[in-house]
Amino acid sequence: MLDNDFIYLDYAAATPVDSRVFEAMKPYFSENFFNPSAPYLPAKHVRRIYEDYKNELAHTIGAKGNDLVITAGATESINLAFTVLKNFENANCIISKIEHASVREAAKNLCKDVREIGVDKNGLIDLKALKNSIDDNTILISVALANNELGTIEPLSEIAEIIRAVRMDRLSRNDETPLYLHSDASQAMSLIDIFVSRLGVDMLTINSAKVYGPKGIGALYVGHGIKLSPITFGGGQESGLRSGTENVASLVGFATAAKIAKEHVNGNRKKYEKLSKLFRETLVKNLDGVIEPKFLGNQKKQLANFAPVCFDGLDAERLIFKLEDEKIYVSTGAACAASKGEKSHVLTAVGLTDSEIAGSLRISMGKTNDEEQVKTAAEKMAEIVKKELERIHG
Amino acid sequence: MLDNDFIYLDYAAATPVDSRVFEAMKPYFSENFFNPSAPYLPAKHVRRIYEDYKNELAHTIGAKGNDLVITAGATESINLAFTVLKNFENANCIISKIEHASVREAAKNLCKDVREIGVDKNGLIDLKALKNSIDDNTILISVALANNELGTIEPLSEIAEIIRAVRMDRLSRNDETPLYLHSDASQAMSLIDIFVSRLGVDMLTINSAKVYGPKGIGALYVGHGIKLSPITFGGGQESGLRSGTENVASLVGFATAAKIAKEHVNGNRKKYEKLSKLFRETLVKNLDGVIEPKFLGNQKKQLANFAPVCFDGLDAERLIFKLEDEKIYVSTGAACAASKGEKSHVLTAVGLTDSEIAGSLRISMGKTNDEEQVKTAAEKMAEIVKKELERIHG
Repeated sequence: MLDNDFIYLDYAAATPVDSRVFEAMKPYFSENFFNPSAPYLPAKHVRRIYEDYKNELAHTIGAKGNDLVITAGATESINLAFTVLKNFENANCIISKIEHASVREAAKNLCKDVREIGVDKNGLIDLKALKNSIDDNTILISVALANNELGTIEPLSEIAEIIRAVRMDRLSRNDETPLYLHSDASQAMSLIDIFVSRLGVDMLTINSAKVYGPKGIGALYVGHGIKLSPITFGGGQESGLRSGTENVASLVGFATAAKIAKEHVNGNRKKYEKLSKLFRETLVKNLDGVIEPKFLGNQKKQLANFAPVCFDGLDAERLIFKLEDEKIYVSTGAACAASKGEKSHVLTAVGLTDSEIAGSLRISMGKTNDEEQVKTAAEKMAEIVKKELERIHG
Repeated sequence: MLDNDFIYLDYAAATPVDSRVFEAMKPYFSENFFNPSAPYLPAKHVRRIYEDYKNELAHTIGAKGNDLVITAGATESINLAFTVLKNFENANCIISKIEHASVREAAKNLCKDVREIGVDKNGLIDLKALKNSIDDNTILISVALANNELGTIEPLSEIAEIIRAVRMDRLSRNDETPLYLHSDASQAMSLIDIFVSRLGVDMLTINSAKVYGPKGIGALYVGHGIKLSPITFGGGQESGLRSGTENVASLVGFATAAKIAKEHVNGNRKKYEKLSKLFRETLVKNLDGVIEPKFLGNQKKQLANFAPVCFDGLDAERLIFKLEDEKIYVSTGAACAASKGEKSHVLTAVGLTDSEIAGSLRISMGKTNDEEQVKTAAEKMAEIVKKELERIHG
């Protein structure tokens, strides 16, 4: 695991593989390496293990193994979900304005009519606007369960309620056009309940890399009767939806990680609520009132491990470098966007000014963080912010 | 590594991860787990490592890191190669009749006009027919470097020669329509030279899982100026061609495996030539002339570790089960096809009768096999074959 000589606060970008996960994966690299489709006993044994772990993974979201398509990660899962649009002419889809690039780009490239729904200052989707934008050609609504920059938890069950009403209305008119709800739950798995029936989703993207599992593996839950199209063609694995030799070791890792996450959802939430409170209070206190940090989102509807914060007028990138000198690692937003120097569309959508966006940091906590780390991080951050203010204002 | 209590002779289906490969991967699961796109130093360090290993991987095929798109495996690489057709209306493509399902299915699904070229009894492509089937709308020719059932090594440089002539002709008529050669080199990497310039290919699929690297990672070499379309959309990694957080641990493993493979190409060939000879001779000798085993392919143009063999009139699946009882593991053909009980299109294409196809085994050797194992396997196989003949003919 991690050394204690640095403080990592960017768990929303990547998580280290849990040692129990790594141990579970190990035998499938070189002992049980057989191709699960081969005809001899040890290969059939590997097939059984693969299906068993797929079932275990499915159980963590209240589904069955057969409901899952195993992919190479969340991006592929999301793109696969959007193929549902292919079967309908003039289909439109609805996404929120704060979706991750993978949803935005999949929507843009796989649908001619993408309707983006605004959010309030906390990142909560405008349900009325969502409802109003649905018409008879709307096939898919895709809203992340928890936003990757703010941690905002979206009201999926209320969206599902709206969808149910639309379905009833369509049925009453003998219109059999389906309307599906897909959600990217990448950020949420270790922090909130993600049972598909309770969320009310028809499709759900889950991601190993954000839940202390290996990178390069994800899954898409697909409800009964939903017809998707494969993105790649070949040997016909995963019921023809995802060809390619099964990545047994990584699936074993993902399922193990998901199981651990599910078992600790409540404990995790309590831990991070405490740490987040400590972080916020220590930061405010140590800033001595020279600047009011603006915590983004509404903690009541936010993943407990998120504490995104804005220092209006400061340069977040400078803060990141100064924090890095102290071995404290935070980011500005989505890693893939940040690396391209793009302005956050999420922070724009919640109504932040350019100056506020430029001064915003994403703090996301995880397993290795404890009270001491979080307190130290907040103290150092306050110190650096004060020095920056002095440098600017003299 | 493998126990010595069984004899695995299906290396064409899957290879165990080399212990050196596993050791190289290890630090990237939980120590250097950072998102390569994140802004702080340890993440930038991971980015550098990723690019370094990508370069190393590219060097094993005589290319540069920037020429590679890292994918989740050969199937995805092949599908990505076929997206080159998207930019041309009425495009046609040419494949051989013995391509793997991933090439056949990608071609079928991404191209309206797929031309299949026959092969001779050894699986060598009919170059004359290939030449004749090229017209002004032919954009892509895809022929595997080495066939996955027969091990037959195709004359890629002769195909490249034909392509060069077509290009010259097109240019002389001011026709700028390109003609590209793609090859799936999945089976070949540890046994023959696969420098892209010497092969004469424009695109090359390479596969970690067949070269003692981890499953779930592959790459596509893409020559300069070739325009592909992404299969999935998102964060824009891999120059926009393959979105999704980079799978650092697996790439490190793949590059390490490829490097080891390249260093031992000559030694491997010599080892397997010897083992293959021993296997064939022992088998023939121990069959006492009661049946003439028909070795498929022409050894001079075959991967040295392949010894596909046909026992006309016998049931290969029964042989597999009998061999399994002796802890000897072989297959009938491609694992993904075998598991669906499909008749081998490869063996059909080389002109085998249904009865010959039903009696064919794929023997493919690898690292753990030694003279003793190979000799034992041949002896046991002869014994089982003789018993089967007795059972049938009394």
